[in-house]
Amino acid sequence: MKKIEEIILSRGQVLDGNILRVDSFLNQQIDTRLMEEIGKEFSEYFKGKGITKILTVESSGIAPALATGRRLSCDVVFARKQKSLTTDDYSYSSTAYSYTKEEMKQLIVSKEFISEDDKILIIDDFLANGQAVKALMAIINQSGASLVGVGIVIEKSFQEGRRLLDEMGVDVYSLARISELSYENIEFID
Amino acid sequence: MKKIEEIILSRGQVLDGNILRVDSFLNQQIDTRLMEEIGKEFSEYFKGKGITKILTVESSGIAPALATGRRLSCDVVFARKQKSLTTDDYSYSSTAYSYTKEEMKQLIVSKEFISEDDKILIIDDFLANGQAVKALMAIINQSGASLVGVGIVIEKSFQEGRRLLDEMGVDVYSLARISELSYENIEFID
Repeated sequence: MKKIEEIILSRGQVLDGNILRVDSFLNQQIDTRLMEEIGKEFSEYFKGKGITKILTVESSGIAPALATGRRLSCDVVFARKQKSLTTDDYSYSSTAYSYTKEEMKQLIVSKEFISEDDKILIIDDFLANGQAVKALMAIINQSGASLVGVGIVIEKSFQEGRRLLDEMGVDVYSLARISELSYENIEFID
Repeated sequence: MKKIEEIILSRGQVLDGNILRVDSFLNQQIDTRLMEEIGKEFSEYFKGKGITKILTVESSGIAPALATGRRLSCDVVFARKQKSLTTDDYSYSSTAYSYTKEEMKQLIVSKEFISEDDKILIIDDFLANGQAVKALMAIINQSGASLVGVGIVIEKSFQEGRRLLDEMGVDVYSLARISELSYENIEFID
């Protein structure tokens, strides 16, 4: 998606440790018009596949997931990253290491929101090492639901997440695929 | 908003400590059609007031904020609840006590996303003691921006948040106002 690439080049910032900061349109400030275009793009790619639910992770996955769910007429479920008082004991859970926060996070989804009949589309903001997507896939496996595909806004193709998902035969659609990321240069795979 | 009241009665659960669990449509599973109606309702109430930005808190405020921002053609900024590596040193911050998580949370917004020219609408899922809204108002004060109003999906009118905001002369629009909450009964203010 050319527009995402242009926005990454004009508004993204490269930080230490191969971190791409996109807080100005996705990770803290959310560009609502861009979310509409993202939702349109994902829904056109994944429509007709009988998706019943979109699964994402709080917080930055919620906006693109919501824009897509609205167009696919399905609800969005977001995994919580820590147990709160409103989390009941009947939950699916899995762990993921966050490289930006440098800690293990437990992802939790209440069992009542995913059933074995669900056909699930995972949406997330970034795919790098694939930790979050693998944790969401583990939750889907626990529920007996089926995974239809994975929609990613920004993929760091030089990290191992995409390769791992390809090897598992997962249908991954990434809107921007970054092949090289440095202070001087950002390159995309067309 | 009658529809929210009906959904609270049919799909909400009352937990210990006056906690209303609405995970099935707002706080973990997000009903995308309901969010559209919420966005429509807030945007109709607050339109024509020159709002340039919507401010909310991760995670549960993001969905209603996004649905409203899309209709008001403005971006959404969400305050983060903890410092991450992508948070720079140039941030506004304020603290809020979370009764559901039983801890103090620091709310952080990067300075680059709110300027003194902004006219801000705060959107949040719940208003109870007003801790989160007061923290967001402190952030707006730090920035020099002006507060246009506050949109709340579910107000616990028997707690002190609404009264505090009324006393400050804040324009608060709550879609559902709960006057009584117990295992046996939920009452609304019309």
